[in-house]
Amino acid sequence: MKGAIVAVGREILTGKTLDTNSHWLAGRLMAIGIRVKRICVVDDVLEEIARELSYCFSLGLELVITTGGLGPTEDDMTLASWAQALGREMVLNPQALEMVRSKYQKLYRMGYVDTPEMTPQREKMAWMPKGAQPLPNSVGAAPGMFMREGSRVLVALPGVPDEMKAIFSHEVQPLLVEVLKERGEGIVMVEEVIQSGFKDESLLGPLVRKIMASMEGIYLKTLATHFGPDVDLGVRVEAWGKDEREARDRLKRAVDALEKALREAGSAEN
Amino acid sequence: MKGAIVAVGREILTGKTLDTNSHWLAGRLMAIGIRVKRICVVDDVLEEIARELSYCFSLGLELVITTGGLGPTEDDMTLASWAQALGREMVLNPQALEMVRSKYQKLYRMGYVDTPEMTPQREKMAWMPKGAQPLPNSVGAAPGMFMREGSRVLVALPGVPDEMKAIFSHEVQPLLVEVLKERGEGIVMVEEVIQSGFKDESLLGPLVRKIMASMEGIYLKTLATHFGPDVDLGVRVEAWGKDEREARDRLKRAVDALEKALREAGSAEN
Repeated sequence: MKGAIVAVGREILTGKTLDTNSHWLAGRLMAIGIRVKRICVVDDVLEEIARELSYCFSLGLELVITTGGLGPTEDDMTLASWAQALGREMVLNPQALEMVRSKYQKLYRMGYVDTPEMTPQREKMAWMPKGAQPLPNSVGAAPGMFMREGSRVLVALPGVPDEMKAIFSHEVQPLLVEVLKERGEGIVMVEEVIQSGFKDESLLGPLVRKIMASMEGIYLKTLATHFGPDVDLGVRVEAWGKDEREARDRLKRAVDALEKALREAGSAEN
Repeated sequence: MKGAIVAVGREILTGKTLDTNSHWLAGRLMAIGIRVKRICVVDDVLEEIARELSYCFSLGLELVITTGGLGPTEDDMTLASWAQALGREMVLNPQALEMVRSKYQKLYRMGYVDTPEMTPQREKMAWMPKGAQPLPNSVGAAPGMFMREGSRVLVALPGVPDEMKAIFSHEVQPLLVEVLKERGEGIVMVEEVIQSGFKDESLLGPLVRKIMASMEGIYLKTLATHFGPDVDLGVRVEAWGKDEREARDRLKRAVDALEKALREAGSAEN
């Protein structure tokens, strides 16, 4: 399964906020065998968010996760963008409304907010595209969203990192693992970094490429660094398979081949 | 002028590398009055990079900056993607070749590489789309690229952060400032963060929106945070203008209006 992450937020585009969410999510998706093909940051403009979502669909990406834009203010418009991209109407989701309502009652009892009332701004967080499944937010107020449409899986998470991580870990990951099982997917990725003893990427590159071309299910990447007399360039070897065993087998074969090639090149050099 | 940043690199999509480059670049572009409308991370696949560049053009974005994929290995293919997106051929750029050659001679004299020879991998870094202007890289080996085509400005920077920053600061920024002058642009942005005394974004939001709707050239953003008894929500007020004076005037008017509204809301509350 291939996916995209769409981070919504002008504060990222203006250089105020470093988007650590996409980085974290990419690692988590990779770990369960979903390949992230693009990460895109877009402005808080309804049409621009919706256009990016539609573009991800047009590229054949079956999982699209948004972060940000679920809050109570008017510039939080990600769910409306989802509705537009999917051609669905926005409805007041009763489950989401109950999540928001009980959250504010709790916040009020704890003295964190001044009123437990459902203002229009608070209610806004419970408006979702028709057919959406709201996801409880154990950290903040805005529920997340999960939706399936044909082979597509659509997820909306908040932009505040702790809320995003909590909803992903508790709600989204188990749902995604189910989807992968249904699809008969379940790619496992393993990796290892090998120190090459080389200090020049332009010489190491051809070796690495040759190994990559010789096997399936592996990816080798020389780790770029500065030039320097003491440099020892690393090579990251990634391997994947339908289960851990296949992935480990491939990793071992690739690492063995790389170490052999490095030994041979080293002796040729000396 | 509106622009896009396209970060090239599978290591970002797999969650190995946090893309700090785009964040840094966005802030630098913002500071000289260029609005970044999208940041996109794409895979090391020639067609996918080229498609993203073409997509940025189709959105009317006049400045597109890529980071990454300028190195000596085969999975460094950003310049070939630029050539494809622009419908230009790749040529061996004599200026770029001289930059690469003298860089490796220097690295060899310093003992950082084992040979000063121009291997095909090293020469590769001097192949650029026809008409490109190579930009010296004071830190690493791969030259950057600057190109103008009609109203468009196209820039390619390396992915290693120190190299990217050096080329941007020494080469790209002065060229962009020239372009902005030619275009009669030169937007200056100033900002200030005001502590609202509010702890609930859903109550602060309507105030902030009202001020934003009442003036031109300003943008107000409540700074999302956790709920808590001691929270004092910040509001970032951004203002821009054709010169610093206009920007500062607008900032002052927006801040004054915000502080007045906060005072009034506070006294209504008590």
